[in-house]
Amino acid sequence: MSEEFQQIVGKQSIRFSTPPAIISRCSIVGEMEGEGPLASYFDEIELDPTFGQESWELGEAEMVRRTVSKAIAKSGIATEDIRYIFGGDLQNQLVGTTFGLKEFNIPLFGLYGACSTCGESLSLAAMTVAAGYAKHVVAVTSSHYGSAEKQFRFPLEYGNQRPLSATWTVTGSGAFVLEAASKEQPLEQYPRIMGITTGKVIDYGVRDSMNMGACMAPAAADVIYQCLEDFGVKPEYFDRIVTGDLGKVGTEILLKLLRDNGYEIGKQHMDCGVEIFSNQEQDTHSGGSGCGCSAATLAGYLLNRLEAKEWHRILFVPTGALLSPISFNEGESIPGIAHAVIIETCKGDK
Amino acid sequence: MSEEFQQIVGKQSIRFSTPPAIISRCSIVGEMEGEGPLASYFDEIELDPTFGQESWELGEAEMVRRTVSKAIAKSGIATEDIRYIFGGDLQNQLVGTTFGLKEFNIPLFGLYGACSTCGESLSLAAMTVAAGYAKHVVAVTSSHYGSAEKQFRFPLEYGNQRPLSATWTVTGSGAFVLEAASKEQPLEQYPRIMGITTGKVIDYGVRDSMNMGACMAPAAADVIYQCLEDFGVKPEYFDRIVTGDLGKVGTEILLKLLRDNGYEIGKQHMDCGVEIFSNQEQDTHSGGSGCGCSAATLAGYLLNRLEAKEWHRILFVPTGALLSPISFNEGESIPGIAHAVIIETCKGDK
Repeated sequence: MSEEFQQIVGKQSIRFSTPPAIISRCSIVGEMEGEGPLASYFDEIELDPTFGQESWELGEAEMVRRTVSKAIAKSGIATEDIRYIFGGDLQNQLVGTTFGLKEFNIPLFGLYGACSTCGESLSLAAMTVAAGYAKHVVAVTSSHYGSAEKQFRFPLEYGNQRPLSATWTVTGSGAFVLEAASKEQPLEQYPRIMGITTGKVIDYGVRDSMNMGACMAPAAADVIYQCLEDFGVKPEYFDRIVTGDLGKVGTEILLKLLRDNGYEIGKQHMDCGVEIFSNQEQDTHSGGSGCGCSAATLAGYLLNRLEAKEWHRILFVPTGALLSPISFNEGESIPGIAHAVIIETCKGDK
Repeated sequence: MSEEFQQIVGKQSIRFSTPPAIISRCSIVGEMEGEGPLASYFDEIELDPTFGQESWELGEAEMVRRTVSKAIAKSGIATEDIRYIFGGDLQNQLVGTTFGLKEFNIPLFGLYGACSTCGESLSLAAMTVAAGYAKHVVAVTSSHYGSAEKQFRFPLEYGNQRPLSATWTVTGSGAFVLEAASKEQPLEQYPRIMGITTGKVIDYGVRDSMNMGACMAPAAADVIYQCLEDFGVKPEYFDRIVTGDLGKVGTEILLKLLRDNGYEIGKQHMDCGVEIFSNQEQDTHSGGSGCGCSAATLAGYLLNRLEAKEWHRILFVPTGALLSPISFNEGESIPGIAHAVIIETCKGDK
């Protein structure tokens, strides 16, 4: 392999020769998430579902604005020195992201990967700074229970029943400021993005929009398998392999699919959707979902555990279900996609 | 500026030190576009609005599938050697793109920039190959009249009247295969992406969804202005400055805004939305729109003119209006975004 392609690893992965650092981050969530087991890790818990705005949609935009604003403030970098934002959400036409980012005056790449968007935004952000296209960029991802239920399922006022396989869309947002490292300044004091494995659209023909976990599990299995193969490592290379929002039902499918392909990840695996709520007490059925689920859990809980040296290296794998109400109502299947990001902190004293 | 950031130019631009080449391309359009003045430049004109499928939505997916398939076939590169696809469309949750790309088994970055998506996908694709993350990638963008009108405006069966400022969503798709160049193999025989300027969300407070040109013109003016400033060139540096789908109304606003800021681009400017239809004969009012408009016009007409050496260098500026039916109906303004891409062929005999 010639020098210019030396970062390419295996079939669909990149190993960064100078891994970008996550120098700051912010997570903001809603009331329900603030009553869950990860509450103490979030930067802000907002009790008003419209975040002081006139609608859920504008509320989500305000949540995005606040999350990015705080992440930048915490980084100490001037807003005008952030060269790009990579962002996305679940609202049609990404209006949560675009309206939320209006005031920043920063070039924007709008992304849509359903609930895998946090993995997609971190991947492209890392690629951009590692290539020297920017010194600092922001990646941000959000979802909102009110705007998502209204758009994808039923009006909340309708009070429909939910099967046990259904998940609960997280009201939450996670933003990350990435900085380019160099050989002189490797930024090893921060969590760094060491590599990525980018996922494909995987369709097993599942058609149940109340069972997203089953739709996404094959995509998660595919990208985790490929990551392990590409980097030539075993599951125990990672302290944790963290999927986005498979929930309990999807997790079982994921573990089985990987087991069938020679990898046992039961010891390492955890799922943001399972962690973010106390399903017994909060009655959220299969767990949390939405692209804000993995984003807020990474920005809040996971990076905190890495910084505390409880873990040294995680594989972060947000998982997305690719459907629209139209495709679903026209009887189409629900394919999945997932993007894997390797995040590492230097080993040190616990 | 240190060596690793040498490609950064000005406030929001990149000048590629080894510009990626567009080694093949394909454009597929619908019947209406096939009756327009650019008909002879498209690879395929499909008379069936559902492309042999059961719905407009699946028809758009089939159009995407065919366009990518043909672009790859024309490139002579094996499908498994395409490392990433950067793609997007106007359908909610990008189902045109994700369903259309299912069978390719290629890692996907899903993008949403409204009708600026072709500029966004080419920008990220170029950044990726120029950084050595891939030897070959595909960028694809599409829109479909039927799926877009149904989603954004009224059911077609309703037969609503359209004001003269309204545009006509193009049924069309453009796909591009990009190859990484090197000092030894500069690929100068192909059109190359020399640089990009990435746009910001620009909101002038326009609220008329039947006048998208007015919503997008400020964003186009902003990114063109910044591109000229960042690269330190005058409008005449380009043989053409080609906006996406401002139409006649938006074009007037764009020219005035740039004139007010010291740049007269009247001689260089053209608009894909104005070119793709004979507005007099085809009764399309302000012109064509949709992210397939600029994508198909670039893949069909514009690159043909560059390859024929009629032009040497163009600034391609797809323009997007950021709204959803929900944001619009909640009384929000319609911000715009635009992304600029510099495409060049070597000077030679005409």
